[in-house]
Amino acid sequence: MEKETARIEGFSDGVFAIAITLLVLELHVPEGDNKPAILNSLASQWPSFLAFGLSFFSIYIMWVNHHKIFKQIYRRNGALMFANGLILFLATCISYPTALLAKYYHTSSETLAVAIYTGLFVLINLAFNLLWAIAASHRELLRPEISPSAIRKIKRDYLCGIPVHLSAFTLSFIWPSIALLVCVLLWSYWAFTSGKPDLSRGNNKATSQ
Amino acid sequence: MEKETARIEGFSDGVFAIAITLLVLELHVPEGDNKPAILNSLASQWPSFLAFGLSFFSIYIMWVNHHKIFKQIYRRNGALMFANGLILFLATCISYPTALLAKYYHTSSETLAVAIYTGLFVLINLAFNLLWAIAASHRELLRPEISPSAIRKIKRDYLCGIPVHLSAFTLSFIWPSIALLVCVLLWSYWAFTSGKPDLSRGNNKATSQ
Amino acid sequence: MEKETARIEGFSDGVFAIAITLLVLELHVPEGDNKPAILNSLASQWPSFLAFGLSFFSIYIMWVNHHKIFKQIYRRNGALMFANGLILFLATCISYPTALLAKYYHTSSETLAVAIYTGLFVLINLAFNLLWAIAASHRELLRPEISPSAIRKIKRDYLCGIPVHLSAFTLSFIWPSIALLVCVLLWSYWAFTSGKPDLSRGNNKATSQ
Amino acid sequence: MEKETARIEGFSDGVFAIAITLLVLELHVPEGDNKPAILNSLASQWPSFLAFGLSFFSIYIMWVNHHKIFKQIYRRNGALMFANGLILFLATCISYPTALLAKYYHTSSETLAVAIYTGLFVLINLAFNLLWAIAASHRELLRPEISPSAIRKIKRDYLCGIPVHLSAFTLSFIWPSIALLVCVLLWSYWAFTSGKPDLSRGNNKATSQ
Repeated sequence: MEKETARIEGFSDGVFAIAITLLVLELHVPEGDNKPAILNSLASQWPSFLAFGLSFFSIYIMWVNHHKIFKQIYRRNGALMFANGLILFLATCISYPTALLAKYYHTSSETLAVAIYTGLFVLINLAFNLLWAIAASHRELLRPEISPSAIRKIKRDYLCGIPVHLSAFTLSFIWPSIALLVCVLLWSYWAFTSGKPDLSRGNNKATSQ
Repeated sequence: MEKETARIEGFSDGVFAIAITLLVLELHVPEGDNKPAILNSLASQWPSFLAFGLSFFSIYIMWVNHHKIFKQIYRRNGALMFANGLILFLATCISYPTALLAKYYHTSSETLAVAIYTGLFVLINLAFNLLWAIAASHRELLRPEISPSAIRKIKRDYLCGIPVHLSAFTLSFIWPSIALLVCVLLWSYWAFTSGKPDLSRGNNKATSQ
Repeated sequence: MEKETARIEGFSDGVFAIAITLLVLELHVPEGDNKPAILNSLASQWPSFLAFGLSFFSIYIMWVNHHKIFKQIYRRNGALMFANGLILFLATCISYPTALLAKYYHTSSETLAVAIYTGLFVLINLAFNLLWAIAASHRELLRPEISPSAIRKIKRDYLCGIPVHLSAFTLSFIWPSIALLVCVLLWSYWAFTSGKPDLSRGNNKATSQ
Repeated sequence: MEKETARIEGFSDGVFAIAITLLVLELHVPEGDNKPAILNSLASQWPSFLAFGLSFFSIYIMWVNHHKIFKQIYRRNGALMFANGLILFLATCISYPTALLAKYYHTSSETLAVAIYTGLFVLINLAFNLLWAIAASHRELLRPEISPSAIRKIKRDYLCGIPVHLSAFTLSFIWPSIALLVCVLLWSYWAFTSGKPDLSRGNNKATSQ
C-alpha cells in the first residue's frame, strides 16, 4: 500500500519551517551610540533571546513528533485533516506567546505570560493526542504492518504528556521559571528519545518506510 | 502515465504554507503595566483573534481543495498555470482583508470590511471554478482513469459554491456577522467532506495516485 | 540517468514561494473612521496594489521559467550552483523595487522607481542567460535525450529577452508607464507560451521526466 | 538501503529558504521628495545592501554544504537530529547580526557588529563539525558505499574551517573590513569547490544517490 500522506507532510513541513523561522523577527536590533551602550542594550534583551531559543526548539521537537507520527499514517480522512490543521494552527500561534514572554518575563506580569505560554503547550499536547486517537481508531489509515501494541505504546506516550504539561501550566502561576524549566526538560527528553528507531518497527521487523 | 505536476504542487504548497503562517504577524502584543491591564488589552483584541482563526482555517481548506483537485490533474498547459497562479495570488491576498477585518470588525465600518473579506472568497471560488473548467475541457490533462461523471461531479460541487459565496457577500452588507458565520459553516462542511475518498476513485476502482 | 537536481529545485521553489508571498507585507491597512474615509484611503493606495500584482506575476513567471529550465538539467557543478544562487538572490530582491514602485509611482520621482524596477528585470534576464549558457556548455549536466537544436532554441529564446528588457529599461526614463506595460506584455507572452510542451521533448520523442 | 532522511532534508530546505528570503525585510525604502534625495538616501544605505548580499550568499553556501553532507547520511538518531536543529537554529539567527552589521558598519561600533557577525559563523562551523562527527562515529547512519577515507576527508575539510573562521573572528576586532573579506573569500572558495562531484563517490565508483 502506497503512502497517501506525502503532500500533507510536505505542507506541514512548510508551516513548521516558516513558524520556526519567523520567530527571529521578534528580536530587535539594539540601540546605542557606542559599544558599551549597544552591549547594554543587547544584555537587557536576554528574555527575548531566551524566548526565541525556547520556542525554536519546542517547534523543532513538535516537528520531530509530527514526523514520527506521520511515518505510521498512510491514509487520511476528514477528522485527521482537521486534527492536523489544529496542530498547524497551534504551531503558527507559538510566536505570539513567545513575544508575550519576551516582553513580560522578569516583570511583575510574568506569571501571566508564562501561563499563556505553557497553556498553549497543553493545547498542542491535546491536539497531538487527538490526532493519534483518530488515527488509532481508524486502523485502515495506519501503516499496515504496525502492531496493536505499538499503537497502544504511542497512545500511552502522548497521554503521559498531558499531566506533565498540565503541571507546568499550574506551576507557572507560582514559580514561572520552574514551569519553563519543566518545558525545557520535557523537550530535552523528547529530543533524546525521538531519534530512536520507531518502536513499531522494532516490534514488527517490518521494512522501514 | 506519470504525474507531471509534482513541482507545481510543491510550489503551491509552499505559497499556501507561507500565506497561512504570515497571518500571525497581524497579532500585536498587548501593552500594559500589570496583569489586569494586559488581560484587558488582550480581550479588546478579540476581532484580531477571530480574523486570524477564520483566515487560517479558510486557507487550510483552500489547500485541501487544491490538493484534491491536483490529485486529478496529471499534465499542465498555459491556461492551467495561469488559473493556478490566480488561486495562489488570491491566497496570498487573504492576509490583507484579514487585517481589515481585525481592525474594523465591530466598528461602524464593519460592513465594508466584511464585504471585502467575503468578496475575496467569491473571487477565490471563481478561480477554483476556472481551474477545474480548464482541466475538464482538456481531457488529456487529467488522470487517465477519471470517469466523465466524476469530472461533472467536481464541476457541480464548485459551481454550487458560487451562489453560497455570493449570498455571504450580499449578507455582509446587512448582517455582517451572519455573513462570516456562513463562511465558517461552509468551511466546516468542506472540512468534513474533504477527507472522504475521492469520488472519482470510488466510481472507477482505479488504483490510487 | 537519475536526476540529481531534485533538492536544488525544492530549495529554489521554497525561495520563490516565500519571495512571492512576502510581497503582501508591503500592503498597508487603510486608516479612517468611517466607510468613505477608508474607501478613499484604499483608493489612494492603487500604486501599491499595482506593484503587488505586477511583482507577484513576474515572480510566478520566473518560477515557471526556472521550472522549465531545470526539467532539462540533470546534474550540477559549481558554476551552475552560483548562477542559480544569483537567480534566487535577484528573486528575493524584487520586493525592494516593488516597495519603491508602490511609494514613488505617480510622483515626480517615478522614472527613478520604474528604472530600478525594470533594471532589476534586465539583471534577472541576464542571470537566466548565464544559467543556460553554463548548462549548455556542459553537455553532461543536461538531460541525456535533449537535442542540440533544442539547446540552441532555449538559448535563443533567452537571448531574445535581453533587448526587450533593455528597451523596457530605456523606456522607463521617458514613459515609465509604457515601460511597465512592456513588462506586463512580456510576462503575458511567457505565461501563454510557458505551458506548451517542451520543445526538446517534441523534437526527441523522449519519455518525459 | 533506502534513504530515511528525506523529510529532514525537506524541512531543513524550508528553513534555509525562509531564512535567506527574510533578509530582504531588513532593507528599508529610501525617503525623499525628489530624485537626488532618493538617490542619496539609497546610497547611504550601502552597508544594508552589503550585509544583505553577504548574508544571502553565506546562507546559500550553508545550504549547499548541508545538501552535500546529507547526501552521505541515510539514517538518523537523536544526536544527529539535535545537531541538525542547532545548524537550523544558527541559520535562522543570521538575520539578527546582519541587521546589526547593516546598522553599525562604518560607525565607531563596527568592530562589535563585525565580531558578532563573524562569531556566529564560528558557531555555525562548529555545528557542522558536530553534525559530521556524530554521523562519522555512527557508521550505520551513513551511505553504505562511503569509504573510510572519504569520511576522514570530509571531517578534515570541516576541521580546517575552524582556524579560518576563528582568525576572521579575531581580525574583526582589529580590521573589521578584512574580517568580512576573509568570510567572502572563504564562501567563494566553498562555492567553487562545492559543485564538484563528491569525493566519496569518486573514490568508490558507487552509484550516485
